[in-house]
Amino acid sequence: MPETVNHAWVLKRRPQGRISRDDYAWVESRLPEPGPGQVLVRTLYLSLDPTNRIWASDMDQYMPPVELGAVMRGGTLGIVEASSHDDFAPGDVVQGIWGWQSHHLADGGAGLTKMPVAPDVPLDAYMSVLGATGMTAYFGLLDIGKPQPGETVVVSAAAGAVGSIVGQIAKLKGCRAVGIAGSDDKCRHLTEDLGFDAAINYKTDDLDQALAKACPEGIDVYFENTGGVITDAVFKRLNLHARVPLCGLIAHYNDFDGHTGVQGPQNYQQVLMNRVLIKGFIIIDYFPQFPAGMAEMAGWLAAGKIHYRTDIIDGLENAVEALNRLFDGANTGKLLVRCSPDT
Amino acid sequence: MPETVNHAWVLKRRPQGRISRDDYAWVESRLPEPGPGQVLVRTLYLSLDPTNRIWASDMDQYMPPVELGAVMRGGTLGIVEASSHDDFAPGDVVQGIWGWQSHHLADGGAGLTKMPVAPDVPLDAYMSVLGATGMTAYFGLLDIGKPQPGETVVVSAAAGAVGSIVGQIAKLKGCRAVGIAGSDDKCRHLTEDLGFDAAINYKTDDLDQALAKACPEGIDVYFENTGGVITDAVFKRLNLHARVPLCGLIAHYNDFDGHTGVQGPQNYQQVLMNRVLIKGFIIIDYFPQFPAGMAEMAGWLAAGKIHYRTDIIDGLENAVEALNRLFDGANTGKLLVRCSPDT
Repeated sequence: MPETVNHAWVLKRRPQGRISRDDYAWVESRLPEPGPGQVLVRTLYLSLDPTNRIWASDMDQYMPPVELGAVMRGGTLGIVEASSHDDFAPGDVVQGIWGWQSHHLADGGAGLTKMPVAPDVPLDAYMSVLGATGMTAYFGLLDIGKPQPGETVVVSAAAGAVGSIVGQIAKLKGCRAVGIAGSDDKCRHLTEDLGFDAAINYKTDDLDQALAKACPEGIDVYFENTGGVITDAVFKRLNLHARVPLCGLIAHYNDFDGHTGVQGPQNYQQVLMNRVLIKGFIIIDYFPQFPAGMAEMAGWLAAGKIHYRTDIIDGLENAVEALNRLFDGANTGKLLVRCSPDT
Repeated sequence: MPETVNHAWVLKRRPQGRISRDDYAWVESRLPEPGPGQVLVRTLYLSLDPTNRIWASDMDQYMPPVELGAVMRGGTLGIVEASSHDDFAPGDVVQGIWGWQSHHLADGGAGLTKMPVAPDVPLDAYMSVLGATGMTAYFGLLDIGKPQPGETVVVSAAAGAVGSIVGQIAKLKGCRAVGIAGSDDKCRHLTEDLGFDAAINYKTDDLDQALAKACPEGIDVYFENTGGVITDAVFKRLNLHARVPLCGLIAHYNDFDGHTGVQGPQNYQQVLMNRVLIKGFIIIDYFPQFPAGMAEMAGWLAAGKIHYRTDIIDGLENAVEALNRLFDGANTGKLLVRCSPDT
């Protein structure tokens, strides 16, 4: 077996605002064939998530920032090409976070999780509804939001990978689901394809009026993905004992490098007056509970009760520009980069 | 028995900023002797609390605002002067919220709770450490803050009625207790009299530096009484899985009448990064659990493990100016108005 050519995006400098190609270097290297215990993986899909922008900054965060000169971190799904490890064989599908590179040589198989691939589940499902994204929606809503039948659940970035699942689970739990998104097309998708009860276009609707109309009985659960003006408007209508799973603050991520803190919600007095619970969470805290969550989600998926979309960009070389789609509101559903053909 | 002359502070208009005498009318009226089922009470102590300022505004709040023309609402302790109700007899000590008035004629004894007066417990204890104030500290810290031995608990308005108890309970639970207050005298009181490990004068100390020094291992529980710049500084140092019982936002209460929402904490990204829990609470939610909390608190008090101070202003006619003491940082411990002699 010949050497393998690996292509990788290496972080060259800390981005300011939107990331650009100049913040990264496109680096070519050669990987030897696997030595004892090593596994060579070819990347099939790279997951692009808002949190990637945080990893590229050096602000205080929940994992160490990506170091300058290191391969950019990212969730990945790949296929084993060659293995000198007993637990892995060519053709195995594996998941990990080996980052923005076309190949990965894993010592001792470290960081690789073999996926139990089912013939009726496309691989991109493991990178979205059946992956960390789907589990973020599942545990954030159910463990922190604790939606009760008849309650109103509002989710921001509702047409995104997490938000679109949140609303559908809310419906499965007997709630009124209201999504906030950034285009009429996205809003139609939420109500017509995904069964949301109402959708609000925050770019064109008057948020206060639209929330009053969409949530006539107030808001019991606000699944927070954005921060910013959406949050300020939602907080005015939080009900007694409302719950706010704080999953993301994407409206602020491009400002982090100035080391200016994020300003908390306006109408914060509502948290006191209405005894609101706000709880930040990061999906890594729920890893031990993934099997149970994935089993229930897989059941919903097989029964046609949950739908998901993927927005797939071809070519690892396009990853940098693709990440900005999340901040431009350009994508619907889970954003992935297809790095090489599935087979 | 002759008619009783009642004096009351009646809310005349909504205050703007600090309350003033011009916002209230001093009204004299005459109460008849109790008819069947009625109880006549003479007010001994009126409790002054930051939340009174909220009640005087017409913002959205957790109870109906005090109506214009109505007696100002307030927690009260009194003594029965005359009774035509079988459950109450002259000399009984009763608690209620009959407000800023010298007397109260209760139909059917409604809203009166008889106090089991113990000879070794002064009456003002029932209006502070053994009343709603003490229970606010107890349930907010223990039920929401859940302090663990070795953790660091920070409390703002630490020399106030609630804060001073919070820090002492934190010590009883094996925590490091750090108080933030507004004068060197208050800080000395916290560390020398109440056993706090450290105290910070937010008016003269550099908050960032002082918190770094006082909390070398970060902050696990922040008992929030103030909002404002103190909160902004504390949020920078919240630890992984920190808890923030949100009890008050006194820095903002004099702004409420402009109907401008309170701006949430800066460094709100910490809530996400460190998976922080923020939970607003109002002590009325804990009424059913009061007996258990008061029993434990009474035990600590009898054992000399909890100390409390009352700041007693004489004369109901001085109540309006007295309330502003809370917002001027002029008081230490529980602020009460003595409306008439104890006997």
